[in-house]
Amino acid sequence: MGVKVREMGIGMLGYAFMGKAHSHAWRDIPLFFWPPPAMPRLIVIYGRHEDRVREAMLRYGYKRYTTDWRNVVKDPEVDIVDNCLPNHLHKEPTIEALEAGKHVVCEKPLARNAEEAREMYEAAKKADVKTMCAFNYRFVPAIRLAKKLIDEGFLGRIYHFRARYLQDWIIDPNFPLVWRLRGDLAGSGPLGDLGSHIIDLARFLVGEIKAVTGAMRTFIGERPLPEDPSKKGKVTVEDAFVATVEFENGAIGTLEASRFATGRKNYNNFEVNGEKGSIEFNLERLNELRVYWREVPAKDIEGWHEVLVTEVRHPFIEVYWPPGHIIGWEHTFINELYHFLDCIVNDKDVAPYGATFEDGYKCTVVCDAIIKAAKDGKRVEVTY
Amino acid sequence: MGVKVREMGIGMLGYAFMGKAHSHAWRDIPLFFWPPPAMPRLIVIYGRHEDRVREAMLRYGYKRYTTDWRNVVKDPEVDIVDNCLPNHLHKEPTIEALEAGKHVVCEKPLARNAEEAREMYEAAKKADVKTMCAFNYRFVPAIRLAKKLIDEGFLGRIYHFRARYLQDWIIDPNFPLVWRLRGDLAGSGPLGDLGSHIIDLARFLVGEIKAVTGAMRTFIGERPLPEDPSKKGKVTVEDAFVATVEFENGAIGTLEASRFATGRKNYNNFEVNGEKGSIEFNLERLNELRVYWREVPAKDIEGWHEVLVTEVRHPFIEVYWPPGHIIGWEHTFINELYHFLDCIVNDKDVAPYGATFEDGYKCTVVCDAIIKAAKDGKRVEVTY
Amino acid sequence: MGVKVREMGIGMLGYAFMGKAHSHAWRDIPLFFWPPPAMPRLIVIYGRHEDRVREAMLRYGYKRYTTDWRNVVKDPEVDIVDNCLPNHLHKEPTIEALEAGKHVVCEKPLARNAEEAREMYEAAKKADVKTMCAFNYRFVPAIRLAKKLIDEGFLGRIYHFRARYLQDWIIDPNFPLVWRLRGDLAGSGPLGDLGSHIIDLARFLVGEIKAVTGAMRTFIGERPLPEDPSKKGKVTVEDAFVATVEFENGAIGTLEASRFATGRKNYNNFEVNGEKGSIEFNLERLNELRVYWREVPAKDIEGWHEVLVTEVRHPFIEVYWPPGHIIGWEHTFINELYHFLDCIVNDKDVAPYGATFEDGYKCTVVCDAIIKAAKDGKRVEVTY
Amino acid sequence: MGVKVREMGIGMLGYAFMGKAHSHAWRDIPLFFWPPPAMPRLIVIYGRHEDRVREAMLRYGYKRYTTDWRNVVKDPEVDIVDNCLPNHLHKEPTIEALEAGKHVVCEKPLARNAEEAREMYEAAKKADVKTMCAFNYRFVPAIRLAKKLIDEGFLGRIYHFRARYLQDWIIDPNFPLVWRLRGDLAGSGPLGDLGSHIIDLARFLVGEIKAVTGAMRTFIGERPLPEDPSKKGKVTVEDAFVATVEFENGAIGTLEASRFATGRKNYNNFEVNGEKGSIEFNLERLNELRVYWREVPAKDIEGWHEVLVTEVRHPFIEVYWPPGHIIGWEHTFINELYHFLDCIVNDKDVAPYGATFEDGYKCTVVCDAIIKAAKDGKRVEVTY
Repeated sequence: MGVKVREMGIGMLGYAFMGKAHSHAWRDIPLFFWPPPAMPRLIVIYGRHEDRVREAMLRYGYKRYTTDWRNVVKDPEVDIVDNCLPNHLHKEPTIEALEAGKHVVCEKPLARNAEEAREMYEAAKKADVKTMCAFNYRFVPAIRLAKKLIDEGFLGRIYHFRARYLQDWIIDPNFPLVWRLRGDLAGSGPLGDLGSHIIDLARFLVGEIKAVTGAMRTFIGERPLPEDPSKKGKVTVEDAFVATVEFENGAIGTLEASRFATGRKNYNNFEVNGEKGSIEFNLERLNELRVYWREVPAKDIEGWHEVLVTEVRHPFIEVYWPPGHIIGWEHTFINELYHFLDCIVNDKDVAPYGATFEDGYKCTVVCDAIIKAAKDGKRVEVTY
Repeated sequence: MGVKVREMGIGMLGYAFMGKAHSHAWRDIPLFFWPPPAMPRLIVIYGRHEDRVREAMLRYGYKRYTTDWRNVVKDPEVDIVDNCLPNHLHKEPTIEALEAGKHVVCEKPLARNAEEAREMYEAAKKADVKTMCAFNYRFVPAIRLAKKLIDEGFLGRIYHFRARYLQDWIIDPNFPLVWRLRGDLAGSGPLGDLGSHIIDLARFLVGEIKAVTGAMRTFIGERPLPEDPSKKGKVTVEDAFVATVEFENGAIGTLEASRFATGRKNYNNFEVNGEKGSIEFNLERLNELRVYWREVPAKDIEGWHEVLVTEVRHPFIEVYWPPGHIIGWEHTFINELYHFLDCIVNDKDVAPYGATFEDGYKCTVVCDAIIKAAKDGKRVEVTY
Repeated sequence: MGVKVREMGIGMLGYAFMGKAHSHAWRDIPLFFWPPPAMPRLIVIYGRHEDRVREAMLRYGYKRYTTDWRNVVKDPEVDIVDNCLPNHLHKEPTIEALEAGKHVVCEKPLARNAEEAREMYEAAKKADVKTMCAFNYRFVPAIRLAKKLIDEGFLGRIYHFRARYLQDWIIDPNFPLVWRLRGDLAGSGPLGDLGSHIIDLARFLVGEIKAVTGAMRTFIGERPLPEDPSKKGKVTVEDAFVATVEFENGAIGTLEASRFATGRKNYNNFEVNGEKGSIEFNLERLNELRVYWREVPAKDIEGWHEVLVTEVRHPFIEVYWPPGHIIGWEHTFINELYHFLDCIVNDKDVAPYGATFEDGYKCTVVCDAIIKAAKDGKRVEVTY
Repeated sequence: MGVKVREMGIGMLGYAFMGKAHSHAWRDIPLFFWPPPAMPRLIVIYGRHEDRVREAMLRYGYKRYTTDWRNVVKDPEVDIVDNCLPNHLHKEPTIEALEAGKHVVCEKPLARNAEEAREMYEAAKKADVKTMCAFNYRFVPAIRLAKKLIDEGFLGRIYHFRARYLQDWIIDPNFPLVWRLRGDLAGSGPLGDLGSHIIDLARFLVGEIKAVTGAMRTFIGERPLPEDPSKKGKVTVEDAFVATVEFENGAIGTLEASRFATGRKNYNNFEVNGEKGSIEFNLERLNELRVYWREVPAKDIEGWHEVLVTEVRHPFIEVYWPPGHIIGWEHTFINELYHFLDCIVNDKDVAPYGATFEDGYKCTVVCDAIIKAAKDGKRVEVTY
């Protein structure tokens, strides 16, 4: 069959939500992006629970499994380590993988706080490999289109950015104290989990953030323990935050994230207002971008365009289906990991489309600034 | 014809945007609310420019006009003074009218700042008449329905309020320096003009505000003078503000207003998230209320309800048209002034549905707190 | 006061739903359209029930009332007869008014069937006055904008028209047998009541209709009598119809109307697809027009434009409020009767923007063709 | 590793649009539906062009390829033949596969006309295997939810069904004469391609169709030949059709499909109105179902529910992602082929959720009836 396609071995850390999404994406790359920069080979997957990680191996198609993550970061067949573990396990395995000469993609937020993230960023600078922080929403076709429009000056000078990432999955006071609600494991609550996405998008689309103010709340202070629901433990992260934000380019805006926004399931909704146009996006309708164009030649029909981002000319769409055949949330990972693979194999820069460890680090700096602003009741200048 | 309907004489201050909207509303009251509490009689209208105020008299149907507002507040035929003048002319005519024993409805914001507003509020307390601050959006059927749902506990404990009132009418740098852009006449920019509406709705729907943080911007510093476009003058109000807000009941939220939000024309959009449900409203679709009900018995269809607020059972609708025949922005004034007329004639309380001068005053206190917070880079506690 | 404005006396037939809407519109014309072509003077109103018509006189502001419509059509102070009576009372008073030299505006459908309508049309041709059939939706700003776009070639060759006018107010089997459900009084059911609107819009926007096929249903055969709910009477009109339609210009489409479309309150929704663009409208959001423009220069943002038809440049809006301050259903009548007044006073043609009696007649011909097609199970060619 | 999972060999006919979608689905089944009824093994893929089918083999992961479809239907390793070929190649390979004892899933429409389809249906009845006609939209979670609601009586008696499936991909007159525009290869145009989907959904959701009327148009009669664009060939299928439809249960409706509906990309939009509620769906937003519930206990908030069909309780969603993480068009195939696999392995009935060959045949009967009705200008009774 002639064609000799290069292969890249994948070592996966974690098999749950993100581990499944990333594994699926690695498998789908050659089906959609053909020929692929390299054929991803699923080598080994790590998880704490042997039964479950063995099942994950079979299900996702890995060659082997392990219950010790060090077996992944050192595996000679592994070229790329994909870190999908909880936040408190981002730093150590990532740095060891870098030291072992592996390319590393690490889930967001890069770390529990800026201090940890800086260590990872420094390690990445030293290593001669590619690294990426998996802010997958940069790879939503509609958001990539937004980026393109802004970069081409379609919006002109930008005045406003407002974003809210809202969910409602812990509104029931009896929802248990899972790891995401514990500060020692997660670092923060919706700020790191959801807010980091919109902070990254703010930086991706508008530019660097200069200062923030904010407030935070934990609405339900105690919750049943997962291992023993008759006992309760303390919630040690915020349930929601609100912030104002000032950008270096003069724009101002608001940021918000909550797990107590009844009716909002995965509502990552942002809007950018510029002098010539505006853009609005909602993740629950991820195939659509709403665009306002002030300079439309037919003034009678000036209005918000509901752009169905499924045309061949739109980012990434060429590899999928004909116009109007929408893609799903999981395709953001296919696009993202394809990009990373392409950067590795063809020695391209992960930036500006992919988030680097620098981006990951800066995002944690902004998160920490919001926490400080909320605590001290003061405007905090962001310094990286 | 037997029925002897009481009459109430109306004295109007101002003939422009608000003067037209209020005059129209007074005329329409008996047509829709029949029998009316009293027949409004349009007695006299005041304006600075004789030609234009004479035309307004003919057009709106007043008996006479004047170019001295004192002729209105003292007119013996006038029972109700309706103050639709620019913000710097709210205090003096309103207080004189109160002293002359007239009922007074005054446009929002009640004054240019809390100091002025407090004087008006004090004067109102002393006077033995009815007063109302014309926050007309309390009289949008959909918003009144929101109020009803919240009061009945439909949302349960409230966690979030987020509101933005966005327009884009001064985005062109050559738009002239009209009175609304001058601090001496308007007091503030979109904060007082638009922000006051959403602050009032925050208080109406969620409760008292405890603290704020914020930032403000003037994007275009100088603009052509209306009287001589070859010269420029300084813009002395903000073009936009952003704020975080903490409520006494524990809820947190964001507030924003801008005249630089391209594509947003009259986008007063707010959302309330409670433990049992949520509510969303957008003034550009004022006949609709979006409602999420977590406790819907048919769980399969849990989702945002797009309620077309045009049923007989909905607030105010009974007097208008059959279901699905939508009403317009101007109907908010008909509902509002009907309410005021009803309160006067039947000696009812303007509160809680109508905004009192106390509400008007408290709103200016919050506005001033946001200004201070933005200036000082600090969280400001709101004290009335 | 110097300006001598001409006056036109209005004689109103009917005080219910349409009588109220038209009376309100006549009153509002000078307030919005200033200076008006003439000042409308509300002279006399007719109704069957003396108590109610006397109240209507007071409420709407007429000088006198009568319980004999002949007193209206012959009243020397009356210049314009406005026929808002039920369908079976369209022909006779209209023809008598024409013979008395009055201008006549008659509610739609022009008559119960084409035969009646033709007599009215013939009478109008003979009379030296202005006549209009009150298809008020031609005066929705968004629909007038659609007309303008189509006339200017914005859509190019038209391929499709699909319209449905859906309501649900008689879905309860105990809803009484009102006049609209009786063939002798109404002529037909939703076909004449709602279908006539979309047939008129089809002709207004796309052109003449060549042939139809169709089907009709009466879902609930008997209903309680209004005068004695313990007894039932036969429903003698259809509850719904569906039709296909072929236009002379080659376009094809579908038409539908129903009073059994649960959840649709006043859902007059149509779409036009042309080679260069498309248009969609929904009466429940009457301030919006959705427009697709294939030839938009910025191809990336090709999509449906949600045009908020509230800019000064949009039809009729200049006389109302600033951008984003939406108008209501009743404004269609203000626009429509202003147009008629302007045509009378300034001797302009009612066509093409207003519907003439010829339009009213042709609409009934199409209705009759649909009835015949449904009955005979055959395609019927439309011949006027 | 202990678990011995049964395997099923897949033989694929076609590698283009549908071949890709089905191949992807077979691969994804075990990743999402775990444990799967059997592990699908991709054995062999057929295509006319050797280069392309070889590439498809590599890309999709088949063991071998062939340029003779008989090698697929007779391959001893193949358990399931998946026929994704153009319409004129549905009958012969399907029947031969059935005769070879293979389970067969065949793309829709089952055949070019009812005569062909009947032969296939008869062959299926004789064979002792499972068969399915791949009407994949039955496997959209929102549509399956609609089915559930209707089956449970949520809508009560059904009055109306209206559906339109609109695209615009051939609106350019220079678009070439591809196989879908040739009657000998495709059988019909949008009627078979798109109309068959909505006819199947009509039957799935509402019930059997009793009679139809209709009209058809070919707007562009000649188009460039793909192989030599300087020459033109005749378009021998319709470009659009419109139809009325009467159901056996008394409901009436309209059906439409077009490739000339500018701005509609993959707009499969239908609405069902029942006495207790209504349902609306649009494929371009396939994660949403709009539901109206007349009997909602909180009458104030009666309105259309925008149900985001991404909760664990919704059909198929459990195997995918958390709430609000939407799925794409391709997931309909994963759900569908999982269903087929489950039916084969566990000997379950393909009906009622999957479309059988009987359903496929009946659908072609309705298509043929619409063609006849349009040609003869008559209502045609549907007889199977």
